[in-house]
Amino acid sequence: MPTSKVHRIPAAAPDDVSGIEAAIAAGRIDPGGVVAILGKTEGNGCVNDFSRGFGTLALTLLFQRYLSKAQAERICLVMSGGTEGGMAPHWTIFERAETNAANGPALAIGHAHTAPLPPEQIGRFDQVEAVAHGVAAAMADAAIDDPRNVHFVQVKCPLLTAQRIEEAQRRGGTVATHDTLKSMALSRAASALGVAGALGEIDRGSLRDSDIGTHLGLWSGRASCSAGIELLGHEIVVFGMSPAWSGPLVIDHAVMADAIDVEPVRAALGRVGIAAAGQLTAPQRDRLVAVLAKAESSHSGLLRGHRHTMLDDSDISATRHARAFVCGALAGLIGHAEIYVSGGAEHQGPDGGGPVAIIVDRSAI
Amino acid sequence: MPTSKVHRIPAAAPDDVSGIEAAIAAGRIDPGGVVAILGKTEGNGCVNDFSRGFGTLALTLLFQRYLSKAQAERICLVMSGGTEGGMAPHWTIFERAETNAANGPALAIGHAHTAPLPPEQIGRFDQVEAVAHGVAAAMADAAIDDPRNVHFVQVKCPLLTAQRIEEAQRRGGTVATHDTLKSMALSRAASALGVAGALGEIDRGSLRDSDIGTHLGLWSGRASCSAGIELLGHEIVVFGMSPAWSGPLVIDHAVMADAIDVEPVRAALGRVGIAAAGQLTAPQRDRLVAVLAKAESSHSGLLRGHRHTMLDDSDISATRHARAFVCGALAGLIGHAEIYVSGGAEHQGPDGGGPVAIIVDRSAI
Amino acid sequence: MPTSKVHRIPAAAPDDVSGIEAAIAAGRIDPGGVVAILGKTEGNGCVNDFSRGFGTLALTLLFQRYLSKAQAERICLVMSGGTEGGMAPHWTIFERAETNAANGPALAIGHAHTAPLPPEQIGRFDQVEAVAHGVAAAMADAAIDDPRNVHFVQVKCPLLTAQRIEEAQRRGGTVATHDTLKSMALSRAASALGVAGALGEIDRGSLRDSDIGTHLGLWSGRASCSAGIELLGHEIVVFGMSPAWSGPLVIDHAVMADAIDVEPVRAALGRVGIAAAGQLTAPQRDRLVAVLAKAESSHSGLLRGHRHTMLDDSDISATRHARAFVCGALAGLIGHAEIYVSGGAEHQGPDGGGPVAIIVDRSAI
Amino acid sequence: MPTSKVHRIPAAAPDDVSGIEAAIAAGRIDPGGVVAILGKTEGNGCVNDFSRGFGTLALTLLFQRYLSKAQAERICLVMSGGTEGGMAPHWTIFERAETNAANGPALAIGHAHTAPLPPEQIGRFDQVEAVAHGVAAAMADAAIDDPRNVHFVQVKCPLLTAQRIEEAQRRGGTVATHDTLKSMALSRAASALGVAGALGEIDRGSLRDSDIGTHLGLWSGRASCSAGIELLGHEIVVFGMSPAWSGPLVIDHAVMADAIDVEPVRAALGRVGIAAAGQLTAPQRDRLVAVLAKAESSHSGLLRGHRHTMLDDSDISATRHARAFVCGALAGLIGHAEIYVSGGAEHQGPDGGGPVAIIVDRSAI
Repeated sequence: MPTSKVHRIPAAAPDDVSGIEAAIAAGRIDPGGVVAILGKTEGNGCVNDFSRGFGTLALTLLFQRYLSKAQAERICLVMSGGTEGGMAPHWTIFERAETNAANGPALAIGHAHTAPLPPEQIGRFDQVEAVAHGVAAAMADAAIDDPRNVHFVQVKCPLLTAQRIEEAQRRGGTVATHDTLKSMALSRAASALGVAGALGEIDRGSLRDSDIGTHLGLWSGRASCSAGIELLGHEIVVFGMSPAWSGPLVIDHAVMADAIDVEPVRAALGRVGIAAAGQLTAPQRDRLVAVLAKAESSHSGLLRGHRHTMLDDSDISATRHARAFVCGALAGLIGHAEIYVSGGAEHQGPDGGGPVAIIVDRSAI
Repeated sequence: MPTSKVHRIPAAAPDDVSGIEAAIAAGRIDPGGVVAILGKTEGNGCVNDFSRGFGTLALTLLFQRYLSKAQAERICLVMSGGTEGGMAPHWTIFERAETNAANGPALAIGHAHTAPLPPEQIGRFDQVEAVAHGVAAAMADAAIDDPRNVHFVQVKCPLLTAQRIEEAQRRGGTVATHDTLKSMALSRAASALGVAGALGEIDRGSLRDSDIGTHLGLWSGRASCSAGIELLGHEIVVFGMSPAWSGPLVIDHAVMADAIDVEPVRAALGRVGIAAAGQLTAPQRDRLVAVLAKAESSHSGLLRGHRHTMLDDSDISATRHARAFVCGALAGLIGHAEIYVSGGAEHQGPDGGGPVAIIVDRSAI
Repeated sequence: MPTSKVHRIPAAAPDDVSGIEAAIAAGRIDPGGVVAILGKTEGNGCVNDFSRGFGTLALTLLFQRYLSKAQAERICLVMSGGTEGGMAPHWTIFERAETNAANGPALAIGHAHTAPLPPEQIGRFDQVEAVAHGVAAAMADAAIDDPRNVHFVQVKCPLLTAQRIEEAQRRGGTVATHDTLKSMALSRAASALGVAGALGEIDRGSLRDSDIGTHLGLWSGRASCSAGIELLGHEIVVFGMSPAWSGPLVIDHAVMADAIDVEPVRAALGRVGIAAAGQLTAPQRDRLVAVLAKAESSHSGLLRGHRHTMLDDSDISATRHARAFVCGALAGLIGHAEIYVSGGAEHQGPDGGGPVAIIVDRSAI
Repeated sequence: MPTSKVHRIPAAAPDDVSGIEAAIAAGRIDPGGVVAILGKTEGNGCVNDFSRGFGTLALTLLFQRYLSKAQAERICLVMSGGTEGGMAPHWTIFERAETNAANGPALAIGHAHTAPLPPEQIGRFDQVEAVAHGVAAAMADAAIDDPRNVHFVQVKCPLLTAQRIEEAQRRGGTVATHDTLKSMALSRAASALGVAGALGEIDRGSLRDSDIGTHLGLWSGRASCSAGIELLGHEIVVFGMSPAWSGPLVIDHAVMADAIDVEPVRAALGRVGIAAAGQLTAPQRDRLVAVLAKAESSHSGLLRGHRHTMLDDSDISATRHARAFVCGALAGLIGHAEIYVSGGAEHQGPDGGGPVAIIVDRSAI
């Protein structure tokens, strides 16, 4: 029976894969079983964040030492830039293995790639469709039939650069925006709506281009989208519970209604056996394998009725403010900051809030 | 008998004092009784943060409409720049009034100013001495005899600019640093050690210039220091409990051991009648009049064993990262982000942590 | 006969008006004759640049000491934020006086204000119209009949903030953009097209909302627009040559085709009697009273065929990059950097270039 | 006889080496002859600039396809981060070949590596010595006997990170500074003094640690130093004129006395056959193979008597301001911005100025 393994490994730099290499050498990780790697790299998480491409290259070179080029390329590498505040740069490696145990349902992982998207389609309905089909393919890969058992969908999507905009215009095409930073938001937005559509959270049929990035009442409680300058298509990984999978790991999720709404996360922790009044205890922290969250600044400019300045700060991107702040709120609950907080949560949870997935090792309970 | 009043009022901009004006018009604030105003203004909180001077000017103009120039100048205006993450720009007005009630001890407030400090003395032992004497004067003003009853000491201190360094050099003087941003840290450091000395937390006698900003084992659990380009001396406000004061307000404090150590704050809230397992409830929040905290990134580059990147980010000052992150951790506990988190906690709490003061209205309990 | 005086005075901080005060005390400036002040203040020049409002308040307080509130309010205060690179923060004071000399034509100055613009109209055709009418009024005020004799039109225009967007939406209105930084660009764009229309550089009739900020083939060679958070209407000042004015000062202008196209500026200097092969000599610099320029990064992402990264840098706004760079190019020609380079030149000169006005004292020739 | 070839090739991203690859494929570059590559990569040029390491990795992978690992490692890769303003990211490839021509003296290139430097020695006299010996070795490699014939010395030096500081402290060592950004300045400073010593521009014997980064009267008119997080030792390349070399290329240099002192550069261009009154003409630009310059903000806070704000801007590093500004000044003279302007010129030219080297193809004259 398939079983999943999740490894959280620190990175001393965007290209520091020595911890993964050591785990492989020690036999803790089987390179051939690695399905996906989520990296939090320490760039600015915006347009000119080269830490993502640097990390991607370092990981690719590492796995090409153990696998054929084709096998290595099948690994989904999702680099989310930006480790603001106390957030720790780290890798989360998702591995698929076989087990004789039959204690399912357990954490199941599936993935899919989509074809390169022309710059003209970024942030538009064509992108929503492309992602929705990719999510369906990834669910099938994970042997998850019921969308209700999907707890997290990570999508890595492309963005517009000055050069790609030029390229589109040279052939007479139009783009959704000429603001490259804005293009990251639109790409994340379209991708999230693709996930919401695939999971039945919204009605894809009634969507229009103009809803993308604006009609924030439409959202997915399980989508996590990151835009990166280093890819042209999408990399999609679905995480959920499947009876076809076994093993000690379970996953659940919560939706934060705003940037400091940590109580739903506390409740989700309780559901998977980690009940805590205050901050998690050290033993509880040890059982919490991974926390995957989205952060964003509310477009209302308000947080619980008080003004925030994230949208009006021209020195620091709002996405950087939000990652630092939400990571602080979650770290105050969890007790450490080696958590995956990804910026830009357009249509990923309600405006200003976001989905949070937790992966726990029940064997230790 | 003296009694204290504390008003928390939002600011729509660094010069927006309309909320204070309205409170005066409504009779909720007596301009003549105002002792100090702590402002969180939305600049970068670093050298070229003009939102502090702008706020100071707006407040000065406001109070000069109600008071004589001399009276208006006696109000301590402490502008702390930087409202990163979801932190809400706001004013906290501290007022001294008279009451017939005799239910002391209660929150007591005292203040003092020090003479302008030559650039040559910033960040050096002379500054430690100047601040220590100012704290003693402010304690006397608050009728607090026992240093153990002091729960928070706010010090506004000067910094070095390129011009002030030139000025010192022109007369043959030397300065502690040529790095203007660094000078803010050294000035806060010397001021904090002055507070620690006055409160008996360290032995001032054995201090040397070289300890300032480096010997982080020396710290105050109650000092809060902010550097500002708009002043040359120090403005010092002492907050504590005094039997000579009455009224509904009480103050206590906690020391965070690191940037996410919120449990001591939870404990302090419990001591003053606000016990909460998770996030405070709305009614509890209403009774919490003010939260005053310091934030900083640990010099070890680590948070609970995991690496943080705040010290290595040349695009965003470490103080900005830390304010956003610590404000998130505290807001996750408190339930809103209209809290006063001030950056740069050198010698203010242990390295990477900081003091947190809470002011509560016991009458509502 | 009317005559103009132009004073360039350094500022040690956004609120440092001491140099102006000294000039008034020495009788060099008559407060009653001051028509406009252009300030280069040292903020970020973007949305949260409070140095502009701070400077405006300091100047207002200064002039209210010499003039009635109504008279003081008639002075156009145009604060352009952002002194990147070596640009020197300074004030340029434009004064109108009387003279017996009759050596016109000479530098003429006229000004006008427009009514507050609702957030819904910012960046749209309504704004173009409002500005065009304002320019006509300012030309009449300067006694300039022929648009060809207008060499520089400074427009200070409003921008959108998160709060103003909310305000518009609350009453069911729509705004041109939800990106506050972008709104500054759109407001400058609409204002520049208003100037171009008033000067006959474009055909206003055929303009559509969709041209604003996008159809960059439409531009004015004499418009200079700055957006500021501190105003809701427009402040417009027209500079040109008028036979009705006398005195030693003359003005001319050049249009830079790109960010390093300094030769047209060199040619303009030659036309007004300052011919220089290389950098201006010290005596030539002394006769050059003021340089007023616009800077922006080309939307093509290219400068003379080579890629620039200004549009893709998410840590530094493109407007900040462009001001530093263009100021360097002009300072290399002029020989100092106390020049007025304003960012964001949408429709102000060709894409990537911008207008440059020079004011020279011919009496010294 | 040895001859040098210099290729200037644009980079579309920090890891875009496709232009070099194409030149190799076309036979224009012989991988085996490449001695050094200077790259201007588009990071922030400060501590967390990963574009440099990314570029280094991409170049290494490229050359390992043509050369043995040992040969590839002998190529000096000097990545200078930061392409502010209109500066174009690009590679300058320096190649050594053989020729039958005997028209020396001509451009000669020599290089050397130094051993890894412990963090404790960064910014101290030990580093000065290490670099001085490296320069002597590189001169010998270039067959340049007389230091007067050396026109440019590029040194890539290490910096301190939070982790390296920790490492030094763990073994009881001390470091020159705890400020990581500051450490880049100190490392550049010590390296520049090493060059000055090797070229006889200063008396190395009388140097003390305390002079490094402070005694700015000591400087080299030919040193160019860049600090990078990706190396621990030094990479040194010497450029000069040697009778032992032949070919069409010649090199000369100028020293800018301040950030806008372009006239000495104009004079140097004249000396090598490119005399221009204003901006270079297109044909002249074609003959100008490379411009290598240093930029920095003056520590006085002044530029020709006017205040600049580069040192007081806590949002943008002074090195970023200076690169944008000086690149603008040079581009105004040269006519394009694909020039190598490296930030941080401590002891590299006088305070606020810097060396500029020009490489010209005399065959086209």
